[in-house]
Amino acid sequence: MRPALPRLSTLKTFNLPPQKVEDLINSAVSTTILTPTSDLLFGHPLRVLVAPSGFKESLGPEHVADAIEAGLRRVVDTGSIVLRKLPLHDGGEGFCRALVAAHGGEIAEKIVRGPVGEPVASHLGFIGEGKKTAVLDMAAAAGLRLVPKSMRDPTVTTTFGVGELMKAALDGGCNNIIIGCGDSGTSDGGAGMLQALGVRLLDANGQELPEADGGRSLSRLTKLCWCGIHPRLRNDAESRVEIEAVCNVKNVLCGPKGVARIYGPQKGATPEQVELLAAALEILGGVAKKDLKMDISSAPGGGASGGLGAGLMLLGATLRPRSEAINEYFEFDRVFESQWDFVITAEGSLDSQSTQGKMTTEMARQAKRHGVQVVALAGSIGEGADGCYGAGIKAFTSISRGPSSLEDAIAETERLVKDGAEKVMRMILVGLALGRRRT
Amino acid sequence: MRPALPRLSTLKTFNLPPQKVEDLINSAVSTTILTPTSDLLFGHPLRVLVAPSGFKESLGPEHVADAIEAGLRRVVDTGSIVLRKLPLHDGGEGFCRALVAAHGGEIAEKIVRGPVGEPVASHLGFIGEGKKTAVLDMAAAAGLRLVPKSMRDPTVTTTFGVGELMKAALDGGCNNIIIGCGDSGTSDGGAGMLQALGVRLLDANGQELPEADGGRSLSRLTKLCWCGIHPRLRNDAESRVEIEAVCNVKNVLCGPKGVARIYGPQKGATPEQVELLAAALEILGGVAKKDLKMDISSAPGGGASGGLGAGLMLLGATLRPRSEAINEYFEFDRVFESQWDFVITAEGSLDSQSTQGKMTTEMARQAKRHGVQVVALAGSIGEGADGCYGAGIKAFTSISRGPSSLEDAIAETERLVKDGAEKVMRMILVGLALGRRRT
Repeated sequence: MRPALPRLSTLKTFNLPPQKVEDLINSAVSTTILTPTSDLLFGHPLRVLVAPSGFKESLGPEHVADAIEAGLRRVVDTGSIVLRKLPLHDGGEGFCRALVAAHGGEIAEKIVRGPVGEPVASHLGFIGEGKKTAVLDMAAAAGLRLVPKSMRDPTVTTTFGVGELMKAALDGGCNNIIIGCGDSGTSDGGAGMLQALGVRLLDANGQELPEADGGRSLSRLTKLCWCGIHPRLRNDAESRVEIEAVCNVKNVLCGPKGVARIYGPQKGATPEQVELLAAALEILGGVAKKDLKMDISSAPGGGASGGLGAGLMLLGATLRPRSEAINEYFEFDRVFESQWDFVITAEGSLDSQSTQGKMTTEMARQAKRHGVQVVALAGSIGEGADGCYGAGIKAFTSISRGPSSLEDAIAETERLVKDGAEKVMRMILVGLALGRRRT
Repeated sequence: MRPALPRLSTLKTFNLPPQKVEDLINSAVSTTILTPTSDLLFGHPLRVLVAPSGFKESLGPEHVADAIEAGLRRVVDTGSIVLRKLPLHDGGEGFCRALVAAHGGEIAEKIVRGPVGEPVASHLGFIGEGKKTAVLDMAAAAGLRLVPKSMRDPTVTTTFGVGELMKAALDGGCNNIIIGCGDSGTSDGGAGMLQALGVRLLDANGQELPEADGGRSLSRLTKLCWCGIHPRLRNDAESRVEIEAVCNVKNVLCGPKGVARIYGPQKGATPEQVELLAAALEILGGVAKKDLKMDISSAPGGGASGGLGAGLMLLGATLRPRSEAINEYFEFDRVFESQWDFVITAEGSLDSQSTQGKMTTEMARQAKRHGVQVVALAGSIGEGADGCYGAGIKAFTSISRGPSSLEDAIAETERLVKDGAEKVMRMILVGLALGRRRT
């Protein structure tokens, strides 16, 4: 009887006896993981710019940059890489400290009233010549992270502490204030901030609205009274202080794309609370229109940080697109005066929002103009992420290792970023070797 | 008063008025996603071998290969790629159909007793000259997928249906039988299979153990009676049929790394059931040793498919390492007679098990011998996955888009594989462009 298929009694495939094959396989598994890169790179080190954003509620941009560096260095020998880290800030959490670190200056600690009314340890910075420029990020006084999960109701959270920081800046003798908007836990149209600076919000009976009561009180607003405003903010002040707010200018205060509807839910608002807030902010917009002939309802950036942008407009602030402002503060343009082989960036979520003024895609556009390729790591990839390709991100991938809960993923973000950076570098080296072989 | 930092009233960064910048940005976002690859490749098409395993309980290897192809083609123009698909089977689910497809032959449908005792629609195949080689995969009669989630108790599931398929093969006049082991839902040491072929399992009183009762009954086994065995399996049969089982030879029947302990839990066994099964399989091993002078307890592959390997040894079967056997059946060696730029493989989970005889790493080792780079996609990446680098996988990544439930991930595996292949291709192209620029 002849078997129908050829039979092999030993491992013909390898032309070796089975035990030898086992040994070979085992020794292969235990060999060093490091890919020797120096040969591949022709002796020229790889020039990599590591420019990530932070991962919200998890890892700041500096730490993300460190983790990416660690991941890359697992794969590329020290002598084979020149690496520069440029953490990306967007005006949100950490903006003040980053600006002070970049320009020199000092941080002043200050206890303020936090978003849910409790005292919180906050801070502002003073930078520039004579330390006459004050910088602060609203998140340090009214950020979402300062709102305990059980208390996430944006109809009551307040920006009062932001006003207190501004007051400290004014009292400290600054000439201008830079305010980073982002990562807010509030939706009060800046009402609390105005109150802290002496603006009185009045109802139809001329009664003052409760202090630091959140957006809900604005439904009773009929008039703003400026008589008690901080003297350095008066229109007729001799040395009137200029305020510059760093905003996502895509955010508006009112209407169907108004801040209550777009961001209310992620700050914990129920559908009813969203409608209550939307109506209250409409009223704030109406009062500004009537009394000050000012359109804060649809102005770009008016919706930044739960409408803090609109409140700051009432004080005469300039709302600046954050990409423009951040490019200037951190001198991103100059980064590309050096030659880079590629940029690796990162962001908590890559999705259809990413091309709407996020720092990662702004960085990618700059890189594209300079002919530099950009790859991105993302905590998660959502609908519409493909739009990033148009913005200059050549390739992106998630740091996720597989199905997991959001909590677990957040808890191990740092490790995931390291592993993700390693994986990206290995894929690129596969291509690099291919490119070399093809020439 | 002079601002401390330079101020910009327009988008100095771009030296363009803001509206123009907006227009440019918007047009960039809407440009085509496709990277033009023909330039990059110097006119030589990329030669890619797509050789993935299936994703358990989700997507067979043929479908995974199709999804990878679709993902690659999103990025690389048709004229820029030469692609061959080689789905990897490991003896588990789909093995029979794949072998019939590769060699020509026919499938015979057959109703058998399934792993929980209910009739299931199963099949076997006949291939080779005169269709004298029968092929079947045990998963088609006793696979985990045939065990409803609520009934996953490997102390009672049975391989009886596997024996019925073998009986059909014997009755059909075959000369030899190839049995794929993998994806089993049983842990009965092949007891049910033996019973279906006429072997009687007896207790201390000479009473026959219940038919198709699962591994638990083996705790009462004292003797095997061969008088009723299928005539074509008798030792003295004129045309004795040869049986070849395709196994993971790392699996053993008994001891601390025995099949009950290693695989019992993933088949639904509680810790108590694991111990019960381990003890029962020890008894089977003891009886084989005493009566037949045969060591099935520690023989390589005896633990394959819940100990079906051991049961088949009792019938004189040859247990073949699956990499060796599969290489032969599907002629993987010959694939590398063609030149490939890289291989893209895929697997449900990459972890410390992956280097233990899984087809993906076997393929990678073959590729490595031929100097071809391999990249891998994984449904999830577990501990010990780094060992894959030693096995020749140059880079791997998860197809996961971010935190998600296992159920959701399984439901959209096909889409995730497509997206994952696209992402890998894009990363490789980044490296390829870099390699080109560096030369």
